[in-house]
Amino acid sequence: MEQENTIKNTGLRGVTVADTRISFIDGEKGVLLYGGYRIEDLAGHSSFEETAYLLLKGKLPDSSELTKFKNTLATNSYLPDFVIESMKLWPDDTGPMQVLMAVISMLGFDDRDTEDSLEAYEEKAARLISGMAAAMTAWDRIRRGLDPVPHSKDLSHAENILFMLTGEKPDPEVAKALDVCLILHADHTFNASTFACREVASTQAGIYSGVLAGLAALSGPLHGGANEKAMAMLESLKDEDDIEAWIRKQLSEKKKIYGMGHAVYKTDDPRAAILKDIFKKLGPKTGNMEWFELGDKVEKTAVRIFTEAGKEGIKPNIDFYSGSVYHMMGFPNDLFTPLFAVARISGWSAHIIEERFGLAQDKPSIYRPAAEYVGNYCGLRGCVYEHKGA
Amino acid sequence: MEQENTIKNTGLRGVTVADTRISFIDGEKGVLLYGGYRIEDLAGHSSFEETAYLLLKGKLPDSSELTKFKNTLATNSYLPDFVIESMKLWPDDTGPMQVLMAVISMLGFDDRDTEDSLEAYEEKAARLISGMAAAMTAWDRIRRGLDPVPHSKDLSHAENILFMLTGEKPDPEVAKALDVCLILHADHTFNASTFACREVASTQAGIYSGVLAGLAALSGPLHGGANEKAMAMLESLKDEDDIEAWIRKQLSEKKKIYGMGHAVYKTDDPRAAILKDIFKKLGPKTGNMEWFELGDKVEKTAVRIFTEAGKEGIKPNIDFYSGSVYHMMGFPNDLFTPLFAVARISGWSAHIIEERFGLAQDKPSIYRPAAEYVGNYCGLRGCVYEHKGA
Repeated sequence: MEQENTIKNTGLRGVTVADTRISFIDGEKGVLLYGGYRIEDLAGHSSFEETAYLLLKGKLPDSSELTKFKNTLATNSYLPDFVIESMKLWPDDTGPMQVLMAVISMLGFDDRDTEDSLEAYEEKAARLISGMAAAMTAWDRIRRGLDPVPHSKDLSHAENILFMLTGEKPDPEVAKALDVCLILHADHTFNASTFACREVASTQAGIYSGVLAGLAALSGPLHGGANEKAMAMLESLKDEDDIEAWIRKQLSEKKKIYGMGHAVYKTDDPRAAILKDIFKKLGPKTGNMEWFELGDKVEKTAVRIFTEAGKEGIKPNIDFYSGSVYHMMGFPNDLFTPLFAVARISGWSAHIIEERFGLAQDKPSIYRPAAEYVGNYCGLRGCVYEHKGA
Repeated sequence: MEQENTIKNTGLRGVTVADTRISFIDGEKGVLLYGGYRIEDLAGHSSFEETAYLLLKGKLPDSSELTKFKNTLATNSYLPDFVIESMKLWPDDTGPMQVLMAVISMLGFDDRDTEDSLEAYEEKAARLISGMAAAMTAWDRIRRGLDPVPHSKDLSHAENILFMLTGEKPDPEVAKALDVCLILHADHTFNASTFACREVASTQAGIYSGVLAGLAALSGPLHGGANEKAMAMLESLKDEDDIEAWIRKQLSEKKKIYGMGHAVYKTDDPRAAILKDIFKKLGPKTGNMEWFELGDKVEKTAVRIFTEAGKEGIKPNIDFYSGSVYHMMGFPNDLFTPLFAVARISGWSAHIIEERFGLAQDKPSIYRPAAEYVGNYCGLRGCVYEHKGA
């Protein structure tokens, strides 16, 4: 009973629910590993395709495995005609996250595979990685009255995202920066969307259903929406003379500084430093140096104010910089959260596969927690309130 | 650390994560309450509309509140044209659960309400209750090449489901039986789909996203699919001479008897008795008495065999009878799980509202559990396996 009460209303924070081989965070030391590799090594030396393979298969691919994986991604990059024709019927102002949920549901229509083997799931994961990018880019064109641009098999996944959006061959430096952004967002252990994926997978629902729950959770402003809010904050601060006074006012009114602090990291978020570096490089190239300077100023001022208040662990997180980097690359603000999904689909798929075919197959299969009833007790003649809880 | 290990890999069974006023199960005594009322009282004396109101608002409606709620359901029962036109493009053999996920995503397209107040959520809950029934019935007609039949404001929710499916005014006794089935399936505390809804709601994602996660979880064979499997089992036993030998063989091969036993009830599932009664009444009326007799025989034989083996708590659950009742009513087997969703949408909505606006608003908002990393540690020169776990 005491144990129950220490867990109740804590959002399961710190409650270890399963084993995983996919990723690891040391929040005290600011370390993030995917499949055992430090995020800095992967961002510096791998591609998104290699990282996705690592998450899905637990090892980095050799060159023939990588070629095969890229071919599977290319083969699965189409959207069926009935999907594109349906999308053309939808209101132009529909939010892209809502569209992704509908399209992923529809990609699951032909998921008739009753043989739900590991191999089938890995094939479907490739279909989902390609499909998420195709859906996001197709919607951005369809809402602008343009036809979708099909995937090119000669381009990388990051290059294809830019190509399918614009129809033009992308700048290599911008594409490489996007590739790093995708790597940084590919996984982050049991966060809310990933846990939602695993919970759905625990009912033996298909991989499309699992991913749908991840998208649904990511659409929440407290989860995937934070990078869009951080960018909106920077935009609102463009003409602000006194940044320090603004930050102090926000804090005194108990309002959020978006992109600062993290549920798990109690020191630097290792992804933020890599993104800040991209931000700095991309600024002069894209003629957006003022965003870098503004972001840097907000960061330094906020960290100084938090440190003065004894909150030294509150540092910029990945959301603080990813919005501004995507903005510099030319993405509209409402694609920031979808871009998160386009990257995270690799981690979601890996976690669904691990839940379904991986470790601890003898555990009770369905996540089904308990709740304490604190309501009424009623007969046909009326109710008595008998709250037994604390 | 010890506490963590007692929770790990238990599917959160028995772990109390929150307070609730919506429903309560006493699995030892076989008691189920919605909003404080026993399920037997609600099944005997209320309608689905009253029960849905009770779940959403925490009290039974008076007659003017009920009229207003029914009007809100009627007003919200349409599917937008772009939804129906999209559905007409979809492959005829698409599974109805997949269709529900896509349609609920699309009903969320016009969910642009940034003012996410309790009142707005209650209005959207009515839209979802009406929309789920409209989507299921529209799809069943569209896949048969027929136009959807619009909702009639002169009929109850249960009558409308039968009317929208067939285009004919339903038999009152069949409609009343369906009404009771909807009441029995309306809520069941923190099961996997409801917990998925609440988890998504904890990110402040909208109610449509929350419901989508519930649908995704319900689509799993270990959750919503069980009634369909129980019916398929009965169908396969129609020409079986020796039921007892078949059951003993299943058990010796460690195969499931679908619809027997429950994660929470350790005695009779109170919903099963009510359904069995409906089953018995509807059998002669619909000329399906042989299903009742077969079901009754399988139940009695299985319970006797379980009791002999010292497993006295294994009794028929709601899934054992609901499939056969829906079959008698003329629903195709692949609508059994969607019918579960058509009822459970009321409980899902209530739980999303409770998570978002209800008890314990000071709790950490997002469900984010932890995992134990049991994978590799790698540098650029190779990996070491350092499993620290038990």
